[in-house]
Amino acid sequence: MPNSNTNELWALRHSAEHVLTQAMLKLYPGLKMAMGPATDEGFYFDFEEVVPSPDSIGTRDPVDNKKNKISEADFPKIEEEMARIIKADLPITKEEISIAEARKLFADNEYKQEWLDEIEARGEKATVYWIGSPNNPHSFVDLCAGPHVESTGKIKAFKLMKIAGAYWHGDEKNKMLTRIYGTAFESENELKDYLKMLEEAEKRDHRKLGKELDLFVFADIVGKGLPMLTPHGTVIRKELEKFVLEEETKHGYQHVITPHLAKVDLYKTSGHYPYYKDTMYPVMKVDEEELILRPMTCPHHFMLYKSRPHSYRELPVRIAEIASQFRYEKSGELSGLTRARLFCLADAHIICAKEQAKQEIKNVLDLIDYMNKKLGLEKGTNYRYRLSLGDRNDAKKYYKDDQAWEKAETILREVLQELKAPFFEAPGEAAFYGPKIDIQMKKINGSEETAFTVQYDFVMPQRFDLTYTDSNGKEVQPIVIHRSSIGCFERTMAFLIEHYAGAFSLWLSPVQVVIISVGKNHIEHCRKLANEFKQNEIRAEVWDENETVGNKIRKAAKQKIPYMLVIGDKEMQSDKLQIRKRGEKETTGFDKNEFIDKIKKLIAEKSNNL
Amino acid sequence: MPNSNTNELWALRHSAEHVLTQAMLKLYPGLKMAMGPATDEGFYFDFEEVVPSPDSIGTRDPVDNKKNKISEADFPKIEEEMARIIKADLPITKEEISIAEARKLFADNEYKQEWLDEIEARGEKATVYWIGSPNNPHSFVDLCAGPHVESTGKIKAFKLMKIAGAYWHGDEKNKMLTRIYGTAFESENELKDYLKMLEEAEKRDHRKLGKELDLFVFADIVGKGLPMLTPHGTVIRKELEKFVLEEETKHGYQHVITPHLAKVDLYKTSGHYPYYKDTMYPVMKVDEEELILRPMTCPHHFMLYKSRPHSYRELPVRIAEIASQFRYEKSGELSGLTRARLFCLADAHIICAKEQAKQEIKNVLDLIDYMNKKLGLEKGTNYRYRLSLGDRNDAKKYYKDDQAWEKAETILREVLQELKAPFFEAPGEAAFYGPKIDIQMKKINGSEETAFTVQYDFVMPQRFDLTYTDSNGKEVQPIVIHRSSIGCFERTMAFLIEHYAGAFSLWLSPVQVVIISVGKNHIEHCRKLANEFKQNEIRAEVWDENETVGNKIRKAAKQKIPYMLVIGDKEMQSDKLQIRKRGEKETTGFDKNEFIDKIKKLIAEKSNNL
Repeated sequence: MPNSNTNELWALRHSAEHVLTQAMLKLYPGLKMAMGPATDEGFYFDFEEVVPSPDSIGTRDPVDNKKNKISEADFPKIEEEMARIIKADLPITKEEISIAEARKLFADNEYKQEWLDEIEARGEKATVYWIGSPNNPHSFVDLCAGPHVESTGKIKAFKLMKIAGAYWHGDEKNKMLTRIYGTAFESENELKDYLKMLEEAEKRDHRKLGKELDLFVFADIVGKGLPMLTPHGTVIRKELEKFVLEEETKHGYQHVITPHLAKVDLYKTSGHYPYYKDTMYPVMKVDEEELILRPMTCPHHFMLYKSRPHSYRELPVRIAEIASQFRYEKSGELSGLTRARLFCLADAHIICAKEQAKQEIKNVLDLIDYMNKKLGLEKGTNYRYRLSLGDRNDAKKYYKDDQAWEKAETILREVLQELKAPFFEAPGEAAFYGPKIDIQMKKINGSEETAFTVQYDFVMPQRFDLTYTDSNGKEVQPIVIHRSSIGCFERTMAFLIEHYAGAFSLWLSPVQVVIISVGKNHIEHCRKLANEFKQNEIRAEVWDENETVGNKIRKAAKQKIPYMLVIGDKEMQSDKLQIRKRGEKETTGFDKNEFIDKIKKLIAEKSNNL
Repeated sequence: MPNSNTNELWALRHSAEHVLTQAMLKLYPGLKMAMGPATDEGFYFDFEEVVPSPDSIGTRDPVDNKKNKISEADFPKIEEEMARIIKADLPITKEEISIAEARKLFADNEYKQEWLDEIEARGEKATVYWIGSPNNPHSFVDLCAGPHVESTGKIKAFKLMKIAGAYWHGDEKNKMLTRIYGTAFESENELKDYLKMLEEAEKRDHRKLGKELDLFVFADIVGKGLPMLTPHGTVIRKELEKFVLEEETKHGYQHVITPHLAKVDLYKTSGHYPYYKDTMYPVMKVDEEELILRPMTCPHHFMLYKSRPHSYRELPVRIAEIASQFRYEKSGELSGLTRARLFCLADAHIICAKEQAKQEIKNVLDLIDYMNKKLGLEKGTNYRYRLSLGDRNDAKKYYKDDQAWEKAETILREVLQELKAPFFEAPGEAAFYGPKIDIQMKKINGSEETAFTVQYDFVMPQRFDLTYTDSNGKEVQPIVIHRSSIGCFERTMAFLIEHYAGAFSLWLSPVQVVIISVGKNHIEHCRKLANEFKQNEIRAEVWDENETVGNKIRKAAKQKIPYMLVIGDKEMQSDKLQIRKRGEKETTGFDKNEFIDKIKKLIAEKSNNL
C-alpha cells in the first residue's frame, strides 16, 4: 500500500495547522489556542472560544452569544485569511528556548502552561515555531516539536472541512473545546482527488448502504450499539461463516462452542480483568457466582484444552470458534457495524510447541491472505501488516520478561520478512502478554484501521498452567497464538459493503438473480424458473408486484443484484434467457442450463467476476 | 406412544406408597409422615425423621445421631415389612369425614393439619384411606384423595429405589424432609423390565457418555450450567445447525441474527417481564440503559418485522434464528445439556394473516416430523403431541380474551386431528399469550419431557402493533406463530446421545472413519488415505499412536466410530479396503472408491444405517 503520509506531507499539514491558528487569532482576538496536530487525513486545531468583551464585538451579535460562536459559515473568511498568509510565503523558523522564556511567551494561556509542565517534568527544553520574523511581536508563534516546512508558501492546497466539539485531552471531565478540521496537500490536484474520494466514501458509507440495501437495522428499544441483521444481511453473514468454517477446517482447526459468559474469576486468572474491566459489561450476581459477558474467548479455550491431557503428537492444537463477544464502547464511539457493543469474531487459539510457533504464524498469514483474496482484497493494495511491539521500560503495561519479548518479536519480524509481507513497525502497540501482527485495512476514505490481529503469547500458558507431554514424557509449557482469519463479522461486513459499494461478489449477494414478471400471466413461469434456480442453490427472487417493469429494473439496479431477468410473452416462448448483468445496459442470451452452470461455477469459486 | 401409566397402575402405586408409610411408621415410631404421591415412575414418600428419644432407641446408635438416620441400607428391612402387609392382603377403604374429625385423627401432625387448612378453605370434606379395618386403632390411616386399589394384595411387584432430601412444598425456605422413592407394577416381569430399562438409561446417561465420548465439559471457574462443547461435540452441533438452516430455508424461512441482549423495556413492552423476571439474568446498567440477557427472541424478531412496512403479498413472513438464549435455572435443577443456563434454540416466528395460520401450523408440524425422522425419531413411538390449553377463569395467568382463546384452541385441535397426529390435551399448560402444541419426547427411562413447542399468539401482534396492508390497502393485524423445528440444540444433543447410546448416525458422527496403523511404516499410507477421505468431506482420523492394534480397535469400538480400517503390510499392498462396521466383528472388503461413494451417499441422505 503506498503510504501517502510521507514525512514532508505531515510537516506541510502541521504548518497548515499553524497558519490556521494564526488566521484564527487575527480574526478572533479573544480565542485561546489549545493544541493541533497533523493527522492521516489532514490536521485539526482545538481552541477555547472566549466570549468577546463588548468593545471587541465588531460584526458579532452583541446580544445572542450563540450567534457569536464560530461556525462552518465562517470558513470562507478564515480560508481567505489563511490564503493571505500562504501567499506572503512567510518563513517558518524553529527556536529552542528555556522553559522560563516559554512560560513568559504564553503567559495567559493555561493550555500551553500545562504542556510546559510536562516538558519541564521530562527535563527537556521547549521548542517554538515562528511564522514570520522570530521574536517580532507581530509574528505568530506556537509551542511545537515540529517539524514544519520552511515557509508558508509550500502549502499548495488546503481546505477547512468541518467544526466539532472536543474535550481537552479527550477526557469528558475536562473543558469542551472547539475543533476545526482541515486538510492540506502538495498540489491542487491531490486535494481534488481527496475530496472526490471523500464524496465517494460518503456514498459508500456502510450505515447509509446498510439501510438502502436493507442489511441491518437498529432500534432504540433494543439498545445502543446492538445491530439486528435482516434476512439479506444474514445471508452475507452466514456465507462468511460458512467460508470461515470450511477454510479453517481444511487448515486443521477444530471448532468449539463455549458460553458467552463466565465467572469474573476466569478473567482474573487470565489477567485480562485489570486491563479490560472498563470495556467489559457490568458483573451479574447469580446465586453465589459473579458472572460477566465475555470480552474475548481465550480463557474458555484454555479451559477446554485443560479438560484432558495432551501429548506432543497432538500439537499444534488449533481451537477455533465463531464467537460472540461483548465490549462496552462509549456511546459516542459507536458506529454502525464497525463499532458495536456486541460482535462476533472468527477467533482461534493455536497451542503449539515453541519451535512450531514460527511455521504456525506463517500458516496463519497465508490463510489470511488466501481468505482476503477470496473477499477481493489484495495484500499491499487493500491491506498491509503492522508489527506491534512491546516496551521493555513499561512493566506496567507489558508483562516483564525481556528475553521472551525479544524472542517473540524476532520471530514475528522474521515471519514478515521471510514472507516478504508489506509491513511497518509500531513500538508500544503490543498486547500485554506479547507482540502482535496487526492486519491494517485501507478504508475507502484513505484511512487505515486495524481489522484484527495475530498475537504471540508466552504469558497465558503460564497463567493457566497449560502443558503437554513431550517425546521424553516430560511436562512442557506450550506457546499460544491468538489469531483471527477474517476478523469480526460485523466489521468485515461493514468493510465489504464500503469496498464493493454494495455490489457484492456473486457468492455474497443476498439475491443473486431477480426475475421480473411483466404481467400477471408471467408470474407462474417466473416462479417455476425461480424454483429451478433454488434447486441449484442459487438465491433467486420473483418480483411480481403490480409495478412497471422499468421501476422494477431500476430497483434491481439500485439493489445491485448481480443478474436480472425480465419475463414477458416473448421470453415465455423461448428457452433462451435474456440476462442483464449488474452494471450493463444490454442483455445477453443464454441457454438456461448453460447460465445455471455458469453461475454455479462462479459461486463455487467465490469469483469476484460476474 | 403407549401410555403405560393407566389409572389402575396409578392407583396401585399410590397404594404401594401407603403401604410404605405404614411400614415406616411401624419400624420408626417417631417418624412424621408428610406426603407422598404416585408418579410416572412409581411413587415417593416424604417424612420428617424425628430424632428418637433415648427410650425408643432400640437397635439405633445412642450417641451418633447421624448413624440413626434412615438410609438405603435400611431398605431390605422396610421392604420386608411392606411385603408382610401386602401378603396379608388387607382391605383398603375410603372414608369421608369432617374436617374436625380429620384434625383429631392427625392431631400431632402439622403437615396433615396444613393440608386440612387447604381442604377447609376450599369448603370440602376430608377423605381418608384405611389399610385394615376402618377406625381400628391398629389400622393405618392417611389423609388422601385416592383412588387406591381395593386391597394390599393387588400390589404384585414393588421395589424401593433411593433416598434423598426434599423441601416441604419444594420450597427451600421450608424444612428439609427425607424422601424415599419406590416403584410398583402389576407383575414381577413388568418390574424386571423397568429395572433393566433403568440400568440401560444409566449407561446411556448423556452426562456419562458426554464425558466418555469427549463431547462437552464443564469447569468450575467458567460457571454453573455453562457447558463447553469440545471439537467432537461441536461437529454434532454444527451438523444439526446446518441441517436446520438448510431445511428451514427450503421451507421458506428467512434467517436473521439479532443481539443476545436488549433493554429491559423490550420485555416490558412484550409483557414477558413479569412472567419471566425470576428466570432472567440480573439487569446490567450500561450508561443510561438497563440491559438484560434475552430469555427469548420474539421481541427482537418483531422489531425487525417493524423496521419496514409489509404487504399481504409477503405473508407469511417466517423469521428464523439459531438463537442463543439465557435463563436462570436453580442450581439444583441444572443437569448436563438438558438443563443449562444458556441454550441455543432453532427458533422462528411466523407472522401471517389469521386465515393462513392453520395451514402454517400444519406445515410446521410436517417440518418437525420430517426433521425428527431424519434424526431417527418416529412420531408415536419416540414422541407425541400435547395440546396445552388456557383457562378462561384464570385472567392472572392468561391474557383475557375468551373468544380469541376459543378460536386459537380450535385451530390447534383441528390441525392435530386433521393430521391424525397422536396427541392428548392438557388444560392450564398454555403460554400467557395463547395455546400451544408441545412436542413430548419419550426418554430412555420411560419418562416424557416437553422438547419444544408451537404456539399460537394473538397477544404480541397487539402489544407490538404489528401490521400489514391487506389487498384493499387497509392496515391489518397479523397472527404470530412461535415455533422451533428441532428444539434447543443442547437438549436435542442430550436426547440423541441417550437415544443412540452414543452410536450416532453417520452424518452426525464426529469421526466417521478411523484408520489404524499397525506400525510406523504404515502411517504415511494411512495419512494419504485419510486425506482422500477428507477431500470427499468424510471425517477421518489416523490413529498412529504407539499402542497395540487390539487396544486401538477396542478404543474405536468404545467411541462407537462407524467405520474402522486397520492398515498393515498386507493392506498396503492391496487396493481393497477391509472395513469393520460399528458393532460388527468381521470386516468386509470394499473397493476404495466404492466405499467412498457408499458413505458419501449415506451421509447425503442422513441415513440412519451404515
